[in-house]
Amino acid sequence: MSGLISPPSPDARAAADERLAGLATPAGALGRLGDLGVWLAAAQEQCPPAPLDEVRLVIFAGDHGVAAHGVSAYPPAITAAMVRTFVLGKAGVSALAAAHGVHVRVLDLGVDDDLDGVPAEVTAHKVRRSSGAIHLEDALSAAELEQALAAGRAVAREEIAAGAQLLLSGDMGIGNTTPAAALIASALGLPADEVTGRGTGVDDAAWEVKRGVVQQALDRLHATPGRADDPREVLAALSSADLAATVGYLAEAATVGVPVLLDGLMSVACALYADLIAPGAAAWFAAGHRSTEPAQSLALEKLGLEPALDLGLRLGEGSGAVAAVPVLRSAVALLRDVALLADLLPPDPAPEG
Amino acid sequence: MSGLISPPSPDARAAADERLAGLATPAGALGRLGDLGVWLAAAQEQCPPAPLDEVRLVIFAGDHGVAAHGVSAYPPAITAAMVRTFVLGKAGVSALAAAHGVHVRVLDLGVDDDLDGVPAEVTAHKVRRSSGAIHLEDALSAAELEQALAAGRAVAREEIAAGAQLLLSGDMGIGNTTPAAALIASALGLPADEVTGRGTGVDDAAWEVKRGVVQQALDRLHATPGRADDPREVLAALSSADLAATVGYLAEAATVGVPVLLDGLMSVACALYADLIAPGAAAWFAAGHRSTEPAQSLALEKLGLEPALDLGLRLGEGSGAVAAVPVLRSAVALLRDVALLADLLPPDPAPEG
Repeated sequence: MSGLISPPSPDARAAADERLAGLATPAGALGRLGDLGVWLAAAQEQCPPAPLDEVRLVIFAGDHGVAAHGVSAYPPAITAAMVRTFVLGKAGVSALAAAHGVHVRVLDLGVDDDLDGVPAEVTAHKVRRSSGAIHLEDALSAAELEQALAAGRAVAREEIAAGAQLLLSGDMGIGNTTPAAALIASALGLPADEVTGRGTGVDDAAWEVKRGVVQQALDRLHATPGRADDPREVLAALSSADLAATVGYLAEAATVGVPVLLDGLMSVACALYADLIAPGAAAWFAAGHRSTEPAQSLALEKLGLEPALDLGLRLGEGSGAVAAVPVLRSAVALLRDVALLADLLPPDPAPEG
Repeated sequence: MSGLISPPSPDARAAADERLAGLATPAGALGRLGDLGVWLAAAQEQCPPAPLDEVRLVIFAGDHGVAAHGVSAYPPAITAAMVRTFVLGKAGVSALAAAHGVHVRVLDLGVDDDLDGVPAEVTAHKVRRSSGAIHLEDALSAAELEQALAAGRAVAREEIAAGAQLLLSGDMGIGNTTPAAALIASALGLPADEVTGRGTGVDDAAWEVKRGVVQQALDRLHATPGRADDPREVLAALSSADLAATVGYLAEAATVGVPVLLDGLMSVACALYADLIAPGAAAWFAAGHRSTEPAQSLALEKLGLEPALDLGLRLGEGSGAVAAVPVLRSAVALLRDVALLADLLPPDPAPEG
């Protein structure tokens, strides 16, 4: 169904490379801002790239069965409370988004709460209440997985129709770093000990429990021969409604050809699977920030991405991607607005005759 | 004359620490953005800090005698051409500043050109044409040094009077990484080989020449016993009109109590000397970015500063500081606009009675 994704425009990339080399700046002096500007030109299929006026973040929210098993420092009820905080515009990411002119939309894909009183559009794509505890059972049925993927794809199309020049993904859900770590472990063939971080800040005892849950989930996946080789099977086994929707959202952005700035652990875990179900999708992704979770760095390396920011953020919610938007705007500004050396030099004397 | 600089407000810092701990985010989840927000609150003497609407960059321009001795990939005439490009608003930093709402002012302190036709205010603080080739002679006389320091102090006061909530410094001048490396080497007691980078991109042969020039300049300084222990003597021997003015500008910002976001090699070299002539000044400085120059990282470590960005930039002009302004704005937004946990929780039941 998904086929190979077309890469960002090679022609626009070549034009941007040439423009970058012709700017009135020393060769290579723009560092990664030069690279990011060229990538955006290719993704926009125009050189120089247009200013990023329409940047849109979608936060996918959902609960996780594992949260009842001691993997998080916070109770699951926080997920619904945070959805309400996003709606009120009072969360961390709300503050960052307001500061940097980023549009925020929050969607309940699998919150374990009916969210009474929250605007209906927030729950319009809901797949189920919570998701299976992945060390004991599948996160989603096959039908739920397809529903979540399709919801994410539909949301990406809606955001693009609303004018998005750049899409961001965020995630909210107590326990979400556990399935995200398991997904990355499976994709990279790593054991739980190498991928499991402290999430929002669990103590040593809870961290050990969390590593055990991740490993048990991986063992459960591998108990069915061949299952770990099929990304849809892995998503059904190890993800959740919010994470599967994020995979669909990222895959659709790449399919349509809109660039994405990734956030932290959940966003990057989903990017790995978007690239598995829609091969080539990763060429449409840039990395917003390095989170404190070890698995996020491992997944970024696998995707060949270097994050724009490294500030020790572990807030989630898409906050790292939003904070990195000005870095992309810097890249666009340099490629658009710096003089070309040829325009500063005196013109060649007119040919005689 | 300068005395000890008062630190940013301990009371505002304590209030900001308390507010940070009370935000509806997991403890420590804001990473360095939390630290920067607290620093800005202390520097502004108010919690939460005000939005950074008035950010002002001054680019100090000047030529360097060493540029005639093979230390740079570019001819000295570029300095004057770049001053004209700043005035036209077509340089790299101009593009970044426009994107991020930063005011830019360029000043000729020692350009080896009369800059005919450039607005008179650009040359109003000029100390001399070029500065001495530091491996052969002092950069500045004692009188010129005092004139340059005073010019920088006056410029800082002007920018603060114009409403600056945050000051940035940039430098323009072909050859400027050579005196900057020498200044850092002297302050840190390091040999030329450990501090000398490739500047705008010299080849191996020119890099060797540059290391030799830096070492010869250090040896010349040390030939007069005790001279290296007096920061004013070191500045006269090894700096330039533009760098000395930057030192004055940074010292005055700290004296008045306005925070500064430092740029790359030149800015950080001058910050070291601002803290030497005005002890305690460094508490008013944050680091915008990590440049590719090895001495910049060494000097940042000495100042106890961790840069906000690390993007491989080596454009100069204050560009790294301007690109980092949105990171500080993120820090302010989080401390100002995120809900307090106490405001989200239901109130205690009213006491009976």
